[in-house]
Amino acid sequence: MTNSPQAVQGAAHSAIGRMLRPRSVAIVGASPTPGALGAKMLANLENNGFAGAIHLINPKRAEINGRPCLPSVDDLPEGVDVAVLAIPQMAVLETVRALARRKVGAAVIFSAGFAEGGAEGLAQQQEIAQIAQEAGMVIEGPNCLGCINYLDRVPLTFIDTDISPEQAAFNRSQPNIAFLSQSGAMMAVVARTLADRALPLSFAVSTGNEAASTIEDYLEYALEEPSIHVLALFAEQFRQPHRLLAAARRAHALGKLVVLLHPGKSSAARESAATHTGAMAGDYQVMRVKVERAGVVFAETLEELGDIAEIALRCQQLPKKSLAVVGESGAFKALCLDWCEELGLHLPVVHDADSPALREALPPFVALSNPLDLTAQGLVDPDLYRRTLAALLGDERFNAVIVGVIQRDAIEVKMPPLIQALREGGAHKPVIIVGLDEGAQVPAKFIAELRSLGVPYFPSSERAFRAVQRLTAFASRGLDAAAAEPVALALPAHRKVVPEYESKALLSQAGIAFAPGQFAANVDDAVAAADALGWPVALKAQSEQLSHKSDAGGVALGIEDEHDLRRAWERMFDSVKAYDPSIALDGVLVEAMGQRGLELIIGAKCDPQWGPVILAGLGGVTAEVIHDVRLMDADLSQAEIVAELNQLKSAALFHGFRGTPVLDVPAVAALIEHLGRVLRGTPAIREIDLNPVVVYPQGQGVVALDALMLID
Amino acid sequence: MTNSPQAVQGAAHSAIGRMLRPRSVAIVGASPTPGALGAKMLANLENNGFAGAIHLINPKRAEINGRPCLPSVDDLPEGVDVAVLAIPQMAVLETVRALARRKVGAAVIFSAGFAEGGAEGLAQQQEIAQIAQEAGMVIEGPNCLGCINYLDRVPLTFIDTDISPEQAAFNRSQPNIAFLSQSGAMMAVVARTLADRALPLSFAVSTGNEAASTIEDYLEYALEEPSIHVLALFAEQFRQPHRLLAAARRAHALGKLVVLLHPGKSSAARESAATHTGAMAGDYQVMRVKVERAGVVFAETLEELGDIAEIALRCQQLPKKSLAVVGESGAFKALCLDWCEELGLHLPVVHDADSPALREALPPFVALSNPLDLTAQGLVDPDLYRRTLAALLGDERFNAVIVGVIQRDAIEVKMPPLIQALREGGAHKPVIIVGLDEGAQVPAKFIAELRSLGVPYFPSSERAFRAVQRLTAFASRGLDAAAAEPVALALPAHRKVVPEYESKALLSQAGIAFAPGQFAANVDDAVAAADALGWPVALKAQSEQLSHKSDAGGVALGIEDEHDLRRAWERMFDSVKAYDPSIALDGVLVEAMGQRGLELIIGAKCDPQWGPVILAGLGGVTAEVIHDVRLMDADLSQAEIVAELNQLKSAALFHGFRGTPVLDVPAVAALIEHLGRVLRGTPAIREIDLNPVVVYPQGQGVVALDALMLID
Repeated sequence: MTNSPQAVQGAAHSAIGRMLRPRSVAIVGASPTPGALGAKMLANLENNGFAGAIHLINPKRAEINGRPCLPSVDDLPEGVDVAVLAIPQMAVLETVRALARRKVGAAVIFSAGFAEGGAEGLAQQQEIAQIAQEAGMVIEGPNCLGCINYLDRVPLTFIDTDISPEQAAFNRSQPNIAFLSQSGAMMAVVARTLADRALPLSFAVSTGNEAASTIEDYLEYALEEPSIHVLALFAEQFRQPHRLLAAARRAHALGKLVVLLHPGKSSAARESAATHTGAMAGDYQVMRVKVERAGVVFAETLEELGDIAEIALRCQQLPKKSLAVVGESGAFKALCLDWCEELGLHLPVVHDADSPALREALPPFVALSNPLDLTAQGLVDPDLYRRTLAALLGDERFNAVIVGVIQRDAIEVKMPPLIQALREGGAHKPVIIVGLDEGAQVPAKFIAELRSLGVPYFPSSERAFRAVQRLTAFASRGLDAAAAEPVALALPAHRKVVPEYESKALLSQAGIAFAPGQFAANVDDAVAAADALGWPVALKAQSEQLSHKSDAGGVALGIEDEHDLRRAWERMFDSVKAYDPSIALDGVLVEAMGQRGLELIIGAKCDPQWGPVILAGLGGVTAEVIHDVRLMDADLSQAEIVAELNQLKSAALFHGFRGTPVLDVPAVAALIEHLGRVLRGTPAIREIDLNPVVVYPQGQGVVALDALMLID
Repeated sequence: MTNSPQAVQGAAHSAIGRMLRPRSVAIVGASPTPGALGAKMLANLENNGFAGAIHLINPKRAEINGRPCLPSVDDLPEGVDVAVLAIPQMAVLETVRALARRKVGAAVIFSAGFAEGGAEGLAQQQEIAQIAQEAGMVIEGPNCLGCINYLDRVPLTFIDTDISPEQAAFNRSQPNIAFLSQSGAMMAVVARTLADRALPLSFAVSTGNEAASTIEDYLEYALEEPSIHVLALFAEQFRQPHRLLAAARRAHALGKLVVLLHPGKSSAARESAATHTGAMAGDYQVMRVKVERAGVVFAETLEELGDIAEIALRCQQLPKKSLAVVGESGAFKALCLDWCEELGLHLPVVHDADSPALREALPPFVALSNPLDLTAQGLVDPDLYRRTLAALLGDERFNAVIVGVIQRDAIEVKMPPLIQALREGGAHKPVIIVGLDEGAQVPAKFIAELRSLGVPYFPSSERAFRAVQRLTAFASRGLDAAAAEPVALALPAHRKVVPEYESKALLSQAGIAFAPGQFAANVDDAVAAADALGWPVALKAQSEQLSHKSDAGGVALGIEDEHDLRRAWERMFDSVKAYDPSIALDGVLVEAMGQRGLELIIGAKCDPQWGPVILAGLGGVTAEVIHDVRLMDADLSQAEIVAELNQLKSAALFHGFRGTPVLDVPAVAALIEHLGRVLRGTPAIREIDLNPVVVYPQGQGVVALDALMLID
């Protein structure tokens, strides 16, 4: 985190705006040579009619294209909004220093060879960050492709860019999309792909190495732009996780969608990211849990990023749980059924009896079903498309409609009735029209008309289903649920490892259930404790230094009477001494022996970057082998926790599998919620392990058999 | 299977050829009305220059388009090759009868309303099948869209079809593709999509309800056409599984690829298929195991079907295990790493030291890696593309190369050096060029040139990876391995359920290991048996009527001595009598008590449609809950079985998990192989259950603790 200073944060908002919407631009390294970065920069500004001041800096030239050149940055007037550095890497640091002296608001640095290029480059990047921090300067890059403001026609990039005044006016007038990317290549690829889909862009920004200004800065800025409804991101690591999460929650509150493509599921991808941007990514799974929880939708491919963005931008609402699908063949219907089952998309069942409007729309020989197979009848009776779509638009059981059409079978016959239904009924719920036959040329007027009605046209049915699934999962998230109050525990001083008896005492206060037990510092106390608890009992050696009691012979179970207990006590102290003579036992925890039940492992940790998360899964060797665990945020409601637990592969064990009783899953959820409250209220806790937690039949609760806390 | 007669099989080959390449065609229901099916049929034949005889049948017309009309089918000359029925459903059956009388070779029946339309339709379809069988007639459909012969320009369909003589000549001269589809809509969709990709088509056939001729018939015909290299199939159920499997194996032997899109993973899709084609599909998983084993590659979407077909058709070889990937950004590299890990694609690691040719091709600042990130350097040094691809073509560590390019960044600069490398080096290994920025217009000449060099151009990187993965998995299959000899067991007469002691005796002959044991008909024999086996022993009640011994108190474990045994014997007989007085015990199986170990369940069954399969998985409740099982064909080699077992989610338990010993997986594989030999050699066996099978440490084998056989 060394290369992400916090100081510019406060000023970042307006400073970013000054950079993206400059009234004056300096090109350091302006050039008359066609193809040179400096020449391309100038051409972009001129071709897009940049109306502000342009300052060219080139010590070897008096003028370029009739514009005067300044010999040096030091000759700039004070307070230019942004300087673009089209200069070699080795000249960058000195130039940034000079720009700071001239109170330039921002610098766009294309050059590579900084943090990603070794120790020297990293040192230079840190120096740039330092200068920026002191001067309150925005730094885009280094190692970036610049940015494009499509609303005001300002391309601060050397990529050929051509935004017509009409296009800019249109984009400004529409709900539009900003694309923020750490990768310059992805900025170029995605921005153009979005434009090809006629999605109105506002800003495309590549943040590169993020020496001083991070993707979070741009996100915060773009969020507050009223016309921006969708924020698409490509990131390989977030340098300011808490600001990212806050921005995502703010977006959600504003009704804006953030969609993110973030490689790093594989460790190889994470290593690769470290190499090419010079920053190590954190734990991908923790990041994902937190970022999804904050309301961000994840895309897995470039196509998906565009697909999700398009639906979110074009449709009046996001698709929700229940989907209607219409097609023209039984084969398409069967394919859709497979996809929907795989994706977990819900297709409400329809019957003649409960769907009079739909039945009315269809000829008698077309059977009611979902997906609906219209057969080729629409070729004979094109109005069938209108009637069917109208009936589905008016049917409240469906939150979204996907219509699959064979494009080359008379698309000019099918489209008008579909468009008519949309015009009459209004696309108040998401409708996506999908072409089945890839490569077909559909008249552009139809696609444009659909778009004007808020209906995306997709060239692939499977992609439409996948994007709808991502958005449906998003729409069903309960972001607004207030989390239970945090609980602050008074942690013991001077402990790093809190032994079991102390951990249990602390966590009991927070409502977590353990087996009844008593700490005993000597064997007589232990006997008394056992008498009080009731035999049989378990003995467990206690010491901060003893994390793995069993290995050291520090656990004795099923002790039936005093004689047994005294023998076990002696043996335990001997055994621990033999295991490690340096371990001093505080004493022994005496606990009542509990009933057997289903064993879970439940752990909580506070990720240094992302904050607290909780992991729950099946205990035992087999479950460990198959990694049957769920990772959750620490602020889920009990209902959300139950939903997570029910996504365990072994969840069937909770619900009365093969004659076993239904288990007390609500009690597990309550325990996890308590754990979350503790973690959120006691930031010094690094880790809590409850292993195993035994789950009993419905109404009989859970008991954590062991507990261990690590604290800072 | 009532509607799939076997009798036409022998003649099907030439009969199918006669239909697909007819010298004479009759149109029953010829019509002058534009848009009528009969009119479209005639227009298709005329527009494609059909040179054979055309017979029009229309009782109300003397002529159509200057061609004379016959009043009735009975007026046809004898022996017309094919009749196309553009007539209402109710007239079809009588017409087929008349066509049979006139010795017409084949009938194409578009009409729906047969097996899928209820009992009456089914009866009519069966009658058509009967007529076809007796007359040796091919029936395409009913409920189909006909077929198109692209090689000879014969469209027997009402879909507008226009094949130029040049196109037909080209398709004939190229390795080409046949598309066979049970769905008419999918025939129309896919055939056109393949044509759009400039893939040379030979035949597109829709088989509809398959009253008499099935997709297997067409597949067998198309297989033997030398120019056909790829057979793409869309099917919802195979009516002749054994012929399908034989054809798939024949395709493999001929070096041809069969790629199949088959909905039905979800039970909803299987039900849907039953509704719209009138035939119930069998067990999807068994089908899939058998069909994959026979060498067929499964596609999951329409796009994938085309993608797989294109690679198979265009590339000189299929992609094999090890892949090189080239891109122009670190972001693309990271995305590829994630996808490859998810898909299980192997990316060999490269180092400066082991890759002199590749190192030589790259500037010093481009780090060697796989995927390789060329950065934007190719824009300055376009020859970098040529040098890099040349080095990868010459590097034997890679069996396939995927090159991802940003299309709009100077594609005209990147393509020539890539094409040059391919021209010089030869695309002897599969190379796929992939565009990252969807929607970009790439000059057609480049794509055409790549195709002429045997290189597919894909508009999506993720699709390329997915298709390569399917083909890589295919290429790594060892179809040629000779299966171990079948073993014929002499089954007991008059048994349906073979009790444990008899099952074990039989299966022991086939090399399957059980605990040492002895059947005892009376208690004295049981004591003697236990003395011989060594104490402790287990007792298990034996009767054909007693499938669930434990439930009836029919199992006693850990019997230490004679006294125990006599008591247990008595209690067991009492308990079984109490459980069900009608059960007569044959006696009791006395077995030595074995050591504990990892418990598996292993089952074998002979699917009535698809033949024998074997299922193996982890035993115990947890494993059952998570369905940790593998379904395999019964003829796998031991090495293949080990590979299957290692794909169990719990496979880590085999290999020494957390200090447990490495287990004897080869012994499990041997047991499964033996089971397969028995199943293949003894067709009367319907099912064998070995549950549990205990696996011991390496070298110590496996023991099946229980065995049950069901026979026909």
